[in-house]
Amino acid sequence: MRIEVICTGDEVLTGKIVNTNFSWITQKLEDFGLSVEWETTVGDDRENLLAAFSLAGARADAVIVNGGLGPTVDDLSQEIAAKAAGVELELSQEWLDRMESYFARRSRVMPPNNKKQAMLPAGAEVLDNPIGTACGFAVTIGKARFFFTPGVPRELRRMLEEQVIPRLQAKAGVQTAVYLKRFHSYGIGESHADTLLAGVTALAPDGSVKLGFRAHYPQLETKLTVRGADMDDIRRKLAPCEAEVRKQLGNFILAEDDRTLEGVVLDELSKQSATLTLVETFTSGQIAARLGPLPGAENVLARGLVARQLGELCAAVGLHRGTIGEITRETAEAVARAARKHTGSTHALAVLVDLDEGADRIEFAGTICLAISDGVDAESRRSRIVGGREWVRLGAVEMGLDCMRRYLQGLPVNERIDFEKV
Amino acid sequence: MRIEVICTGDEVLTGKIVNTNFSWITQKLEDFGLSVEWETTVGDDRENLLAAFSLAGARADAVIVNGGLGPTVDDLSQEIAAKAAGVELELSQEWLDRMESYFARRSRVMPPNNKKQAMLPAGAEVLDNPIGTACGFAVTIGKARFFFTPGVPRELRRMLEEQVIPRLQAKAGVQTAVYLKRFHSYGIGESHADTLLAGVTALAPDGSVKLGFRAHYPQLETKLTVRGADMDDIRRKLAPCEAEVRKQLGNFILAEDDRTLEGVVLDELSKQSATLTLVETFTSGQIAARLGPLPGAENVLARGLVARQLGELCAAVGLHRGTIGEITRETAEAVARAARKHTGSTHALAVLVDLDEGADRIEFAGTICLAISDGVDAESRRSRIVGGREWVRLGAVEMGLDCMRRYLQGLPVNERIDFEKV
Repeated sequence: MRIEVICTGDEVLTGKIVNTNFSWITQKLEDFGLSVEWETTVGDDRENLLAAFSLAGARADAVIVNGGLGPTVDDLSQEIAAKAAGVELELSQEWLDRMESYFARRSRVMPPNNKKQAMLPAGAEVLDNPIGTACGFAVTIGKARFFFTPGVPRELRRMLEEQVIPRLQAKAGVQTAVYLKRFHSYGIGESHADTLLAGVTALAPDGSVKLGFRAHYPQLETKLTVRGADMDDIRRKLAPCEAEVRKQLGNFILAEDDRTLEGVVLDELSKQSATLTLVETFTSGQIAARLGPLPGAENVLARGLVARQLGELCAAVGLHRGTIGEITRETAEAVARAARKHTGSTHALAVLVDLDEGADRIEFAGTICLAISDGVDAESRRSRIVGGREWVRLGAVEMGLDCMRRYLQGLPVNERIDFEKV
Repeated sequence: MRIEVICTGDEVLTGKIVNTNFSWITQKLEDFGLSVEWETTVGDDRENLLAAFSLAGARADAVIVNGGLGPTVDDLSQEIAAKAAGVELELSQEWLDRMESYFARRSRVMPPNNKKQAMLPAGAEVLDNPIGTACGFAVTIGKARFFFTPGVPRELRRMLEEQVIPRLQAKAGVQTAVYLKRFHSYGIGESHADTLLAGVTALAPDGSVKLGFRAHYPQLETKLTVRGADMDDIRRKLAPCEAEVRKQLGNFILAEDDRTLEGVVLDELSKQSATLTLVETFTSGQIAARLGPLPGAENVLARGLVARQLGELCAAVGLHRGTIGEITRETAEAVARAARKHTGSTHALAVLVDLDEGADRIEFAGTICLAISDGVDAESRRSRIVGGREWVRLGAVEMGLDCMRRYLQGLPVNERIDFEKV
């Protein structure tokens, strides 16, 4: 089945907004075992919209159109859909009633120009939008079934998942359920992970499990897409593959599915009724900023301390100025111990970065010395990262959080990662 | 002149990477008074690439193709360009020599598969790439001139600016120079700014100045695109428009052109040989993280302090626990004064946030109380922001930095903004 996507709107065409709706649509379809073959972006322009609909209608089996369902004069999707399908626009009384009650629930009167949103091509099938006034719909143009979706991201996402994907699966003759399992890791590069996991999909001999990656430095997401008759079947097929991913990526897996590294660290600390003090230098509060805004962090993050000079750093944690001459594992340990004592928290993490001299460039490197203290033990790690100031900063933030996770989960804090220079 | 863009590559088509190259290309063209009419994305697939090139060649006058110039087997742009243009591939000795010296300068031997990058359609015009091995080129397909550019963002950007845009301007018969003037502001919404600046372009009576906006909450970018015979002509036309923007947006302009808010704050502090202590609660180090990683910040940012509980906050700045009962302008002032004294810095900024109770939702709000102390004066501000936890956090970070800028520049710290609830 050939699927195309048409994105509409001057804001996307002129680059005022980056087209994240498209990447979201195509990824979501991939997760359900469907592939997009061709994407077109046109502006709010009658001639180009009509040409785009006609071309896609002649080439594809299914087309997802995004945007142009709003109430204003530059929202043209219904009008051009009707023209391309060779039908008239008709008022959908059903959708008009829905919109009026939508406004009534918010104690507002529906502005007259919203009525335009209930004008659909004759014979169109309504695609429900429970969270907005833009009415999704499906019509046939040429040889393709067209699915019209709203431009507002959260409305698009819900309509795609609840309305469009089930129809695409039915059209593709997919009788099976699809499930997406995700693993998040830090420290293993995509090609390395690809090599480690070469045998994974063979563990489900009928080809029902697909392996994929999404690298967003410093993290890597490993995805298993599983097809099956139902969830029991999927669980049976997934089990050996999942076990193999866990075996191969091991301690590097920091979270699964919708969980995040900072969420895992926060949960581990909460479970242990622990409180945390963070000490940062070049990362300048970025580690604290990952943890601090999370709900519940107010009971866990006792204190965040940032200093860019060693003298200030000593003062911030209650050490005599001049105690620290250079950044080493030992000084990081001394700082973590002092910080914990200074604030009275149960744990402290100190992430100190010694930047190279000179201007920012791709060969620019930094040495990270980090330490964790919990009053009994202190663990530390030294690592060198190359790739420019921002690369070093991102690496130091992630390494700090990930070593904290490892420490709290009883895993080794020192394990070689692909991104460090030895 | 009709311009189209074709983006190629499975990574873009499957959404593994968001297509920021396209938004960058189309924005850059807009800045030079050129508009993109149609965009197509296809994968690394011979049939779809050929169809996309043929369709665009039949419709457009100029086409920019992005990606597919690499050394691997899935990089197909040259091969399909030759096929669409009806010519053979030929070795460009010029580019082969360039690549060999590129590797030689890095003390490496060119891998044999890079030779593929020097195979261009016969008769193609080389578009120089001084920072990579992908050779840009121009050929004619159908009635359009095609410009092939590399997928690596920094290589694309340089080639577009130096090679492609001048050729497009020449083709469009644009004999004039184009200049882009940018203003960054915080506190004025896009539609408000649009109203305030309604008369700006009329100040250049020949229509040579165009007004545009780019909103990326919390900041707004206001752009003036000016055409003229040369830079003197442009400066003359821009002057009254620029003055009007400065008059209308006034104190809200936080930086111009390539400067940033955090850069301006850092420069003002440096100029005054000042040092800064930051105190944060819910923003959790995000303000420090904007300033701290900048070159030179190590001499200005004395200390960053984060605490999520009022008791911890007092302890962090050397006040008795229990001094602060609730978050007000007065307590923010007390914290800023204490923090400055505690660390010995010349200035302190305290940004305290009182979050509403309950789950995150679009009506979720927070009250921001911030204060700046320099040992002589203390200034403070109270503001309420609605829109969810993340919206409140972003607003508090920006307001903290912007009030610091205002204070250092001698401007009023209290000036009503469009994003606050009164």
